[in-house]
Amino acid sequence: MATKSVNEQLAIGVDIGGTGTKFGIVDRNGNLLFSSDISTRDFADFDSFVSALHLKLMELVEKAGGIGKFKGIGIGAPNGNFYSGTIEYAPNLPWRGIIPLAKKVQDKFNLNVTVTNDANAAAIGEMMYGAAKGMKDFVMITLGTGVGSGFVANGQLIYGHDGFAGELGHNIIIPDGRLHEGTGKRGSLESYASATGVTATAIELLANSTEDSLLRQVPVEEMSSKKVYEAAIQGDKLAKDIFEYTGRILGIALANTVMNLSPEAIILFGGLTKAGDLILKPTKEHMEANLIEVFHNKVKLLVSHLKESDAAILGASALVWDAK
Amino acid sequence: MATKSVNEQLAIGVDIGGTGTKFGIVDRNGNLLFSSDISTRDFADFDSFVSALHLKLMELVEKAGGIGKFKGIGIGAPNGNFYSGTIEYAPNLPWRGIIPLAKKVQDKFNLNVTVTNDANAAAIGEMMYGAAKGMKDFVMITLGTGVGSGFVANGQLIYGHDGFAGELGHNIIIPDGRLHEGTGKRGSLESYASATGVTATAIELLANSTEDSLLRQVPVEEMSSKKVYEAAIQGDKLAKDIFEYTGRILGIALANTVMNLSPEAIILFGGLTKAGDLILKPTKEHMEANLIEVFHNKVKLLVSHLKESDAAILGASALVWDAK
Repeated sequence: MATKSVNEQLAIGVDIGGTGTKFGIVDRNGNLLFSSDISTRDFADFDSFVSALHLKLMELVEKAGGIGKFKGIGIGAPNGNFYSGTIEYAPNLPWRGIIPLAKKVQDKFNLNVTVTNDANAAAIGEMMYGAAKGMKDFVMITLGTGVGSGFVANGQLIYGHDGFAGELGHNIIIPDGRLHEGTGKRGSLESYASATGVTATAIELLANSTEDSLLRQVPVEEMSSKKVYEAAIQGDKLAKDIFEYTGRILGIALANTVMNLSPEAIILFGGLTKAGDLILKPTKEHMEANLIEVFHNKVKLLVSHLKESDAAILGASALVWDAK
Repeated sequence: MATKSVNEQLAIGVDIGGTGTKFGIVDRNGNLLFSSDISTRDFADFDSFVSALHLKLMELVEKAGGIGKFKGIGIGAPNGNFYSGTIEYAPNLPWRGIIPLAKKVQDKFNLNVTVTNDANAAAIGEMMYGAAKGMKDFVMITLGTGVGSGFVANGQLIYGHDGFAGELGHNIIIPDGRLHEGTGKRGSLESYASATGVTATAIELLANSTEDSLLRQVPVEEMSSKKVYEAAIQGDKLAKDIFEYTGRILGIALANTVMNLSPEAIILFGGLTKAGDLILKPTKEHMEANLIEVFHNKVKLLVSHLKESDAAILGASALVWDAK
C-alpha cells in the first residue's frame, strides 16, 4: 500500500495473549492515546475473534479521528511470523495449525498489517521507547506465564531464515529435566523460569522435603508464583530457595545468550520480574558464574521500565514504524 | 589508510591456532596463491612471533609481486576482537592478557589489519566462497581441538556489543557436567563435542563399563578422537556409543541455536566432521528431537566443502574484502 498522506501519524498496536488480547492507539512518540481489550480464549473460531477485534477497535479509531489518520497495524502474537504474517502452531492459543492473521486483519481494516511474536514486539518497543533506546545489541526476555525472547544485533531484530527466531524459552537447559506439557520437550527454560515453572518448582520442593514453610498452608491447586513471592518477602526460606533455583536456571540461559550474542544489555520484562532482587540477584550471580572471563561484569541486567499494561501494545504498534 | 590504487587485488590471510599459525596470499576470487606456516607455540614472546611471521610472509609477498598489490591483512585468532583488534585472555595461546595484535602487525607491514575470532573468520569464508554462498542467516561451527562458532543474521556477522559474540563452545549444555580445564567451567559444549571431549568421553566410558572394546588396547595417554574413529569404523560398539553420546550433546546445542536464530543452515567444519555419519547422524537426530514443532525438518546440517588446510586462511583473508 502506498503512503496515503502526511496525516498517517497514528498506529494500532495489538497484543494477542493466551487469555486476553489488548490493543490501543499509539502516536509516533509512543503515547498510548486509547486502549481496550477483548478475550482471546472465548473465541474458538478465529473469524469471530477478528470481527470482535474490529468492532471494538473501530470505536477507538473513531475517537482518534478516523481511519485516515492511521499508517498501519502492528500485532504481537505467540508464534507470530514476521515474513508470512501468520500464527503457526501456537500451543497457547485456541486456534490450531497455520492462521492467516495479517491477511484477515488487513481485509477487515484496509490497513497494512505487520506481525511478529510477542517478545520480538516487546524488543522493538524497548528499542524505540524503553530501556534499550540507542542500543544496537541487546536481548529482551519476557518472564510471564511462558518465557519469550527477542534478539537485536547490529541494530536489527533477528527474525531468522523463516521468521521464527527468538525462542530462548524453548532452549534445553536441563537435559532430561522437567516435562513441558505444551511442547512435550524436557528441561526447557520455560519449564522453570516462568510463572508456571515457579509454581511447579514450589510443588516439587515441598514434596521432596520436610522443611517448614508458609507455603505448606497453600493447597497444591492454589499454588502460584505470587504465593511464593508473598512467602519469600516474609522471609520464608523455602520460598526464597525456589527463586534461587529459578535464578540458577535462568542464569545459565542468560550466560549462554551472552556468550553467543555479546549484548550490551539483557532487559527482563513480565510478571516474574516483580519479585525484584529475589529473582534478579541469583540470576545475575549464576549468569556471571557461568560466563568465561572475557564477558565478566560487562553485560547490564535491566528490568523494563515501560508500564506493563502498555508495553506490549506499544511494542506491537512500533512494528508499524519499523516495518520496511 | 586510504585506498592506494586499483592494484590492490590481493589479501593476506592469517589463521593463528594454539599449535601453529598458517598464512597465505589470496586473490579476490578466493584462490590461495601461496601459503606457508610457522609455529605459534614456540614463541613465548609475542613480538618475536610477529617478527617471524613478517619474515616468512614477506617471502610470499615478494613472490606475488610486492606489497603494493595488497589491500590488507585479515587475521583469525582465538578470542580475536573485531572492534579492538586485540586478542584477549586466550586460554590456548602462549600470550597472556590483552595482546595488541592488529596494531603490532600493522606497524610491521604498513597494511590495514582486520581481526576476528577464528570461527567468525571461517563463517565469512563460507559466506564468500563456500557452502553458505548466498545465505543471509546461517551458523558456522568448528569442531576441532575446541569448538568455535560464527553467527550470521540478516547477512551480517554478529560481533556483539564488545566484539566477542559467537562463543557457542562455552555454552553450558550439561549443568554441573564435565570440567573444562581451560575455563574452569563445568558442562560446556566444548568439553564434550571437541576432539578433546571425545577423548575424555572414551576414557570415561571405558572406566565406567566392563564392555569389550577395541579401545581397551589403547593406553589412556594415547587415546584420541582418531583412535575412537578407527575403532568405530571397524564396528566397535563402545566406540560408536562415544559418537552417539557426543552427538546427543551437540544436538542439544544445535537445537538451542536453531530456536534462537532460526538459521537456514548449520555448517560444520573441522576434524570431528571427518567421522561423517558416525557423528552427523546422532547429532541431527538429537537436534530434531529437541526442536519445537515449527522448526522441524527445516534446517540443513551441512559439512563445509572447503579444503580444510585452506579454509581458515581463506576465511581470514575474506575479512579484508568484508571490512568496512
